[in-house]
Amino acid sequence: MGRIEDRIAALGIELPAPFSAPPGIVFPFELVTVSGNLAYVSGHGPADGSELLVAGKVGAEVSLEEAQHAARLTGLSIIASLKQELGELDRVRRWVKALGLVNCAPGFNLTPPVINGFSELIIEVWGEPGRHARSAIGAAELPFDMSVEVEAIVELEPD
Amino acid sequence: MGRIEDRIAALGIELPAPFSAPPGIVFPFELVTVSGNLAYVSGHGPADGSELLVAGKVGAEVSLEEAQHAARLTGLSIIASLKQELGELDRVRRWVKALGLVNCAPGFNLTPPVINGFSELIIEVWGEPGRHARSAIGAAELPFDMSVEVEAIVELEPD
Amino acid sequence: MGRIEDRIAALGIELPAPFSAPPGIVFPFELVTVSGNLAYVSGHGPADGSELLVAGKVGAEVSLEEAQHAARLTGLSIIASLKQELGELDRVRRWVKALGLVNCAPGFNLTPPVINGFSELIIEVWGEPGRHARSAIGAAELPFDMSVEVEAIVELEPD
Repeated sequence: MGRIEDRIAALGIELPAPFSAPPGIVFPFELVTVSGNLAYVSGHGPADGSELLVAGKVGAEVSLEEAQHAARLTGLSIIASLKQELGELDRVRRWVKALGLVNCAPGFNLTPPVINGFSELIIEVWGEPGRHARSAIGAAELPFDMSVEVEAIVELEPD
Repeated sequence: MGRIEDRIAALGIELPAPFSAPPGIVFPFELVTVSGNLAYVSGHGPADGSELLVAGKVGAEVSLEEAQHAARLTGLSIIASLKQELGELDRVRRWVKALGLVNCAPGFNLTPPVINGFSELIIEVWGEPGRHARSAIGAAELPFDMSVEVEAIVELEPD
Repeated sequence: MGRIEDRIAALGIELPAPFSAPPGIVFPFELVTVSGNLAYVSGHGPADGSELLVAGKVGAEVSLEEAQHAARLTGLSIIASLKQELGELDRVRRWVKALGLVNCAPGFNLTPPVINGFSELIIEVWGEPGRHARSAIGAAELPFDMSVEVEAIVELEPD
């Protein structure tokens, strides 16, 4: 196992199955594309494979704390996809940028604390190279009513 | 004509006029910018020049099928802008990333099937190099009430 | 002072304090990350340090003109962060891409004219290299109810 996988194991974290389409839906896109030394990660939600773990509007059906946990689960789903698509998590040299989206009930605007659940996980696992630029915005709707979605850009080690 | 333009002609596809500002509106920005070997495409909608072809909230005034078609039209508008700005579509080596936005009526969250209308067009034209990372999210409002908007990053052939 | 700072002074523009977290909120992310010759700027709002200058829904509590001004203030906040993080604004060779978000009241969709307040500021300061690709979309909610948010990618001078 690589250094990052050792770190994930030491933290007692278990990765979910990589994100996949729910029954009846086609995903004609890639979970991760690589261009030069950047990997672009598609929007992920708090899912284990095709099973959505947290759905509903944050600030109404879903509390701030539940949404923060959903953001952490979203980070785990992204890490699982990176592992599957890159083969080895140690290929991720650093995190560059994340766009975090929160499925907000009207009037709920604490989107940065929600997306902190994602950012803190990444920093917990990668340390200083996990620190990224970020936006945290409120979406009107997210796919299949997922509570949180994150897309990201990471920098890879040179070949 | 280049290889991709031949392919577009063989598919019987006609490109619209490149996206432009509606009367009374100024667009002080570029449709496409190039940095290194990446081209960044501004948000486009289902338009022929400055004329918007599909407007309204998806799930209310606009059906899922109409929205999928709007996403396809958005892809055609992006291809028209790439042709105008790059001179030659064969300069696009591959598609890297797309951010798809759906102008959702409250409760409509089938955003991935909508944006599939865009992704499937790009794969139809470019084949495997058309496959991209993607997010498909619900926007509260889109410019001039357009039903779909997509922005994209493509990788160019080396000079 | 560098060329761009001279230009800012000549225009009579004063930069705000760089964006920071309001009391009780943690920002576990970077205002700017650099990867290769690109700098990725986190989502910023119309703020002076941690003080939000324009809040509320555009089209209801906030007028189009006020929102355009908020977009300009957001640009000033981004410039202040770039100055702090890069040390020297002349390191910014050109602007590549911006994602502009407007905190829209239902039915307000003039998002491009709002984000023009940002784009016009950047072109005023940088001239032709300030021209960027852009999207301007309506968010359901923005952090702490800020009226406008912008994230950006700029290209740096080679070292």
